[in-house]
Amino acid sequence: MSKVIKGGTVVTADLTYKADVKIEDGKIVEIGPDLSGDEILDAQGCFVMPGGIDPHTHLEMPFMGTYSSDDFYAGTRAALAGGTTMVVDFALPSPGESLLDALKTWDNKSARACCDYSFHMAVTWWSEQVFDEMKVVAEEKGINTFKHFMAYKGSLMVNDDEMFSSFKRCAELGATPLVHAENGDLVAEMTAKLLAEGNTGPEGHAYSRPTQVEGEATNRAIMIADMAGAPLYVVHTSCEESHEAIRRAKLAGKRVWGEPLIQHLVLDESEYFNEDWDHAARRVMSPPFRNKKHQDSLWAGLASGTLSCVATDHCAFTTEQKRYGVGDFSKIPNGTGGLEDRLPVLWTQGVETGRITMNEFVAVTSTNIAKILNCYPQKGAILVGADADIVVMDPGMGKTITAEAQASSIDYNVFEGIEVTALPRYVLTRGYVAVENGELKAKEGHGEFVARDPNATVNTALSKWKDLTAPRPVARSGIPATGV
Amino acid sequence: MSKVIKGGTVVTADLTYKADVKIEDGKIVEIGPDLSGDEILDAQGCFVMPGGIDPHTHLEMPFMGTYSSDDFYAGTRAALAGGTTMVVDFALPSPGESLLDALKTWDNKSARACCDYSFHMAVTWWSEQVFDEMKVVAEEKGINTFKHFMAYKGSLMVNDDEMFSSFKRCAELGATPLVHAENGDLVAEMTAKLLAEGNTGPEGHAYSRPTQVEGEATNRAIMIADMAGAPLYVVHTSCEESHEAIRRAKLAGKRVWGEPLIQHLVLDESEYFNEDWDHAARRVMSPPFRNKKHQDSLWAGLASGTLSCVATDHCAFTTEQKRYGVGDFSKIPNGTGGLEDRLPVLWTQGVETGRITMNEFVAVTSTNIAKILNCYPQKGAILVGADADIVVMDPGMGKTITAEAQASSIDYNVFEGIEVTALPRYVLTRGYVAVENGELKAKEGHGEFVARDPNATVNTALSKWKDLTAPRPVARSGIPATGV
Amino acid sequence: MSKVIKGGTVVTADLTYKADVKIEDGKIVEIGPDLSGDEILDAQGCFVMPGGIDPHTHLEMPFMGTYSSDDFYAGTRAALAGGTTMVVDFALPSPGESLLDALKTWDNKSARACCDYSFHMAVTWWSEQVFDEMKVVAEEKGINTFKHFMAYKGSLMVNDDEMFSSFKRCAELGATPLVHAENGDLVAEMTAKLLAEGNTGPEGHAYSRPTQVEGEATNRAIMIADMAGAPLYVVHTSCEESHEAIRRAKLAGKRVWGEPLIQHLVLDESEYFNEDWDHAARRVMSPPFRNKKHQDSLWAGLASGTLSCVATDHCAFTTEQKRYGVGDFSKIPNGTGGLEDRLPVLWTQGVETGRITMNEFVAVTSTNIAKILNCYPQKGAILVGADADIVVMDPGMGKTITAEAQASSIDYNVFEGIEVTALPRYVLTRGYVAVENGELKAKEGHGEFVARDPNATVNTALSKWKDLTAPRPVARSGIPATGV
Amino acid sequence: MSKVIKGGTVVTADLTYKADVKIEDGKIVEIGPDLSGDEILDAQGCFVMPGGIDPHTHLEMPFMGTYSSDDFYAGTRAALAGGTTMVVDFALPSPGESLLDALKTWDNKSARACCDYSFHMAVTWWSEQVFDEMKVVAEEKGINTFKHFMAYKGSLMVNDDEMFSSFKRCAELGATPLVHAENGDLVAEMTAKLLAEGNTGPEGHAYSRPTQVEGEATNRAIMIADMAGAPLYVVHTSCEESHEAIRRAKLAGKRVWGEPLIQHLVLDESEYFNEDWDHAARRVMSPPFRNKKHQDSLWAGLASGTLSCVATDHCAFTTEQKRYGVGDFSKIPNGTGGLEDRLPVLWTQGVETGRITMNEFVAVTSTNIAKILNCYPQKGAILVGADADIVVMDPGMGKTITAEAQASSIDYNVFEGIEVTALPRYVLTRGYVAVENGELKAKEGHGEFVARDPNATVNTALSKWKDLTAPRPVARSGIPATGV
Ligand SMILES: [Zn+2]
Ligand SMILES: [Zn+2]
Ligand SMILES: [Zn+2]
Ligand SMILES: [Zn+2]
Ligand SMILES: [Zn+2]
Ligand SMILES: [Zn+2]
Ligand SMILES: [Zn+2]
Ligand SMILES: [Zn+2]
Repeated sequence: MSKVIKGGTVVTADLTYKADVKIEDGKIVEIGPDLSGDEILDAQGCFVMPGGIDPHTHLEMPFMGTYSSDDFYAGTRAALAGGTTMVVDFALPSPGESLLDALKTWDNKSARACCDYSFHMAVTWWSEQVFDEMKVVAEEKGINTFKHFMAYKGSLMVNDDEMFSSFKRCAELGATPLVHAENGDLVAEMTAKLLAEGNTGPEGHAYSRPTQVEGEATNRAIMIADMAGAPLYVVHTSCEESHEAIRRAKLAGKRVWGEPLIQHLVLDESEYFNEDWDHAARRVMSPPFRNKKHQDSLWAGLASGTLSCVATDHCAFTTEQKRYGVGDFSKIPNGTGGLEDRLPVLWTQGVETGRITMNEFVAVTSTNIAKILNCYPQKGAILVGADADIVVMDPGMGKTITAEAQASSIDYNVFEGIEVTALPRYVLTRGYVAVENGELKAKEGHGEFVARDPNATVNTALSKWKDLTAPRPVARSGIPATGV
Repeated sequence: MSKVIKGGTVVTADLTYKADVKIEDGKIVEIGPDLSGDEILDAQGCFVMPGGIDPHTHLEMPFMGTYSSDDFYAGTRAALAGGTTMVVDFALPSPGESLLDALKTWDNKSARACCDYSFHMAVTWWSEQVFDEMKVVAEEKGINTFKHFMAYKGSLMVNDDEMFSSFKRCAELGATPLVHAENGDLVAEMTAKLLAEGNTGPEGHAYSRPTQVEGEATNRAIMIADMAGAPLYVVHTSCEESHEAIRRAKLAGKRVWGEPLIQHLVLDESEYFNEDWDHAARRVMSPPFRNKKHQDSLWAGLASGTLSCVATDHCAFTTEQKRYGVGDFSKIPNGTGGLEDRLPVLWTQGVETGRITMNEFVAVTSTNIAKILNCYPQKGAILVGADADIVVMDPGMGKTITAEAQASSIDYNVFEGIEVTALPRYVLTRGYVAVENGELKAKEGHGEFVARDPNATVNTALSKWKDLTAPRPVARSGIPATGV
Repeated sequence: MSKVIKGGTVVTADLTYKADVKIEDGKIVEIGPDLSGDEILDAQGCFVMPGGIDPHTHLEMPFMGTYSSDDFYAGTRAALAGGTTMVVDFALPSPGESLLDALKTWDNKSARACCDYSFHMAVTWWSEQVFDEMKVVAEEKGINTFKHFMAYKGSLMVNDDEMFSSFKRCAELGATPLVHAENGDLVAEMTAKLLAEGNTGPEGHAYSRPTQVEGEATNRAIMIADMAGAPLYVVHTSCEESHEAIRRAKLAGKRVWGEPLIQHLVLDESEYFNEDWDHAARRVMSPPFRNKKHQDSLWAGLASGTLSCVATDHCAFTTEQKRYGVGDFSKIPNGTGGLEDRLPVLWTQGVETGRITMNEFVAVTSTNIAKILNCYPQKGAILVGADADIVVMDPGMGKTITAEAQASSIDYNVFEGIEVTALPRYVLTRGYVAVENGELKAKEGHGEFVARDPNATVNTALSKWKDLTAPRPVARSGIPATGV
Repeated sequence: MSKVIKGGTVVTADLTYKADVKIEDGKIVEIGPDLSGDEILDAQGCFVMPGGIDPHTHLEMPFMGTYSSDDFYAGTRAALAGGTTMVVDFALPSPGESLLDALKTWDNKSARACCDYSFHMAVTWWSEQVFDEMKVVAEEKGINTFKHFMAYKGSLMVNDDEMFSSFKRCAELGATPLVHAENGDLVAEMTAKLLAEGNTGPEGHAYSRPTQVEGEATNRAIMIADMAGAPLYVVHTSCEESHEAIRRAKLAGKRVWGEPLIQHLVLDESEYFNEDWDHAARRVMSPPFRNKKHQDSLWAGLASGTLSCVATDHCAFTTEQKRYGVGDFSKIPNGTGGLEDRLPVLWTQGVETGRITMNEFVAVTSTNIAKILNCYPQKGAILVGADADIVVMDPGMGKTITAEAQASSIDYNVFEGIEVTALPRYVLTRGYVAVENGELKAKEGHGEFVARDPNATVNTALSKWKDLTAPRPVARSGIPATGV
């Protein structure tokens, strides 16, 4: 049974044009004028765009014996409600755990997903086993991205030599390392110091990891990646210091991408100074929100291409879970929501203001990351043959964001009260209409795993350049030539 | 009569895939496997890419009563020989001359073109007439780009207030200003100083316009464009100082593009120190060649996107013409060739080394500029409906560049002796096969003018942002409110 | 009759130590413990520092047939009240006027000065006469600094080629060029545009000359100075863009100094948004006040040495004079006061907060500029043989700044309401006690002209380096060597 | 018995003037014209300057059971021969060893010193004992500087949390942390990788620690120091990346100093590509020599003040010792000489070219470090009361540097063949004439320890600012205020 999205304006990362889009068997089969099909989706006055890809979520994330409240069902349902049709989550082996075992755990969780998904594999410890399993993960499991935590000392954090080893392994495998960039030693030390000084409230979380702690780690990861011969993807780039390190790297010919979160683009540190503990604690995430100077830097990065993707780091802890941290901010679980609001908020504050174009909107919410993750044009494209992951954005719809009305299962929303001026009229996930005239009809278990091959073009090009410029030994006749 | 490019790998700015490409009536009509047609072009082992667009040429450029030796026939023939299927030349009104009159002159010259072309209109003086004619040019003549010379004092140069007026006019019209960025006052003063000191050789040309003279002007033009509310395109960005100014602008959220030339990417200032006067004089162009530090900066800019397009500034003066400047470097006509070699040289030194990917190659030689000039996807794309301007690049062909074997009419080649490892097997200009199995069959007069509308997406977005953030008067009840 | 400053702590740009200071005939004759003399000034608990030098004042500045209200008497009286013992004013020839004639005019005005003074000579037009007179000014008149206005189009402004000529002349004479760095063309154009749009209030002044207009001009002046082989002193550096250009220049080995004003360090642009027209108009100066980001940049520059001196640009127009600009901000006379408050305000907001040390305080208020102006250690030093220009700062005295209580003759004070935590107990000008126990006893006509020789060490070193690296012609046997 | 240095030009960090200098009991007792005394040192035509202070030496440095060949006798003798009158060496506790025990070891070694000396204390491990002993060292032992190695993994290296703890301790004690900034993890990993790949020659040493490895560590140390509230001194700043990090820190208002070595200013990486193994191995030090781009950056830093001191890291290993590393560059002992040549080489390549002034020469070789180390004006000054540590530099003397003619005990000289155009005619160490008319008369055991107090002005100012801006808890009435 075919479907036709009719009368809309197709907007992709590089094109804007009037056309209908025809879908069969979950794929786009025709794009052009006057198409007909079994079912017509009226896109008059709307923008027909590749569905959003959120490269950074933590659904059903384990935390102290419980889990973050949006699991793969609730989370992907929220995603679809907001026009996002693919999420990339993180398989997190405990230190000592097999990567493949962790992957199984996450495979199980994801069975209930309503939209397509993929995984980044975290490298949280180092051993010959990890070295060996990385190959299996990259070559057999469809995962070409490996995440490294430079913070969370004592649990997920890896040290510089472990990162170097893992990054080198990525380079060999044609895979791309990712980093959570904060100096974990410093965060731990600062946390202890602040608590000792009586700074126990949620604002202490922000004090414990100021921008330079993130900038430092970004800078370090970039150096290590370059020495290892690998490109680098920096998740949740929240500040000018980190952005500056990325720009500096690019100027040195390095291959580095930065990912601001929608939260950091529109919310600021004043949230932590709210007199309501709950209000502040609900905004606790790492990195914390920053000030306007940093926001301006992030927006400029999106427009100029020095930053590449907008994500959410969606990790939805309830107020109840947040309250584990009453009296000790370091116990507040880290994470906020955003999956449902990313597209409408970015559209409103980016496209409607002229800060970014519609095409750039598509690029940073979908296409760029699809290319980086090497699943383009299966995802991130409105092209014949591509998966029919489509959002039909209606600039005539609008709302004020409220927790009450959201699809996500958490009991608050960090964007509460913010107005958005466009919303999805339709959202299709591989052809299935999950949002119809604004009504959410997500289907549990519809989502499928998106396998991603290693050796994307950038990885290959970089390896070539690194080989060409590798250090060569000096030829010497006698050693030492003098004396002796 | 249909043609099919068969068995090749299509490479665009964002895709790489096996497919045949079918062409009818000068347009691409189908892309897919196993296509058939009246004529088959065998692309086995080749890359099928959008034909190159050179946004910066000066064909049949007037000089002291003569002209640069490559006219629209010879120049576009050379372009096609090297895989370039569209050139953008500059209509240059003399100070005081009507823009429309100048356009007619260039229209006449271009009648013999072998490939498609468009024009930038130069603003070389300022008056109400120019102000009025800019509207006609932008709205009726298909030209949305206006060039400004910050150098060539006494002939083409405009001052800051003239630039500001013209840039504001561009902003109103949805057009984009371009600048040749060198401080003309300083160049004139330095030239006089050097000649007075006996520095009369071609190396004096380089001494008279060092990198900071270019960087300064770029920085100034960026400020003026921002104040005027217009984006800015900086032609022949040759050095780190200029690139730095562009990067700094991007970080401030400004819309600025930079265009390195293939010459600046691979040739350096040592050419001017050659003991052979002719050798040095033939390399005289503005800006002059720089050193390796600057080359590295330009390459990094291409890979990271802080620089956008590779051009040639092709302006072919013969050795005889160059010799007008014996004894006085300021009389050497400025210009070198490059149209024919741009693609093969960039491929060899960029793609083959891994400095840029194949997709980036297409982006910087064709697609990016098509978007900036607002003629995408008519040009710069392998898409159904696009003009069949196509280069089939054969990585199995190679040659050593020599003046003797070139299509261009000049008697030397600045790339003489450089090896290239890929060459066009076929080049199609709107479906016509101008290069067939490496043999040049360019057809005089085949080229057509490419009209380009104003109000490209970036222009529109920028105007929106500028409106939103425009200065607002402070409301005051009594003025002065105090005393009186 | 000898005087001894007793019991204080001597603080200089590089030393802090307990000592008495003995003075005879206007000079320091001894420094050490337990000195005795005819008159004792009790400095117990105080800091004995070189008197402030304000390198940037406009006393009795002509304006539309009237003058700024602080003349050399009132202005230097205010200076002494605040611990400043030397001012450097600007001799401003009208375009076409002889430099020597202008100097005579300023000589006459300065006869009433209560403290020592010197002049910068402005170059407001260019001709052989100016070229010749610069030599007289530098070699016979004791003036080694030449000021250039890049703004005030139509009156004081000079163009790039005029600046280059003048800067080259400075280099030959061992003199140092100064610039008021704002792009005058843009300011003029923006002013017209804003007025046309109805932005006529004082805030329009700020809108007409945003930070990038200053940054651009600073960047341009630096390039021109480097090409001319001269160092450069940038007056009233008010913003990060300008500071950035200076830092970038320093990194390229250039000799450039920046001078923030005390106003820009502590006051911000919100002053212009005051609903009281008078309040806003009284703050109108060029460059206008900026925001906190820029203030932080300036403070960091003082601590790190990338900025060198704190000045005032004291040019005191009364409210009545300011009101010439009701209905048209461009008619508001540019200028504010500050001479009297510079030291106490900088001490309070700089030293008391730890942003700068006491020694850095002395450096940026006195010693650095004395070195740059080549009158060190006659001025700017507590050394035997130095002029007894001394301020005895009492950290036990404090006040809230008010116009009512000030020595300056203007009817308001831009620092109104700001608290200072230290004030001069004594101020000596060449030994004469102009402030005694906080009481002002300035003596009309006491001030003398301070002659300053050219060829300061930095000038000489720079010339040496420029000679060494000057462009050299390439030796060629036959020209052209080929063919012919 | 008094001595008078007669007829010379006194040159200090901020003054240049003709005067005689009189010395008694090791101190300067008078400065002025026409002084007389028991012994006259003729300084006609010479520059009388504060003796050089080398803040970075390793005399009699332990290495695999032997020692670096210049011990405190030979090394300080060489120092005096070249005009350096004070060295600061490093007391290096083995991990686990008491700081006080290490200090005793170094005290013993230094008994034979011919000139004055002081120590930095290294923190090579962390424990409560170290924490406690730091107080004793700072408050009782006259050492206010603590060195941290970010490289030499497995021996001297400390981790980020150890650095943070130690830096915080420094902040409490008013002491200043120093860092050897190279990422030790990466160096270790790269070393292993290179050796495995057959890069075993001395050039492998350079490959194993490229500039970005240093830049990264500098950047990291700066962040940690800022978080700890301490200033930071970066030893052997050798490259633009490191200098960039320092400049960026200064712009953020941080207190950071950088110390280039004379070797890095004048020698470059091509030394490692010498076909003579010995030649290359003798130049092995950390960081290794860099290229011209980095040298230019360092020189600009000295002139502009973003870098502060020129040192040597003098650590003289003989060719025989170097040969421990045949077949494995990682076994080549790290270190070169320079103590004897620092002043003449810097004078020749800096002052004679005009890159720095004579006053800047004194600042970077002596005065700046004396201030940073808080021993100014006892050292680093030509002032009454200062120690008579004086070099009388004769611009009429010159030589070609050769190992054969040197005072140092090593068998080669990295500056071999370089010409210098000025040499010490006299060198005085606390009044003793150790060089007389160019003849070396150093006296064993003459040197004394220079005690240096904590709480220098910069330290105190920084602590004030840090207190003022420390994070404050948010006052909340009920926690959580909502719900519950
Ligand atoms: Zn994270
Ligand atoms: Zn995350
Ligand atoms: Zn040009
Ligand atoms: Zn051109
Ligand atoms: Zn001014
Ligand atoms: Zn002024
Ligand atoms: Zn070291
Ligand atoms: Zn060392």
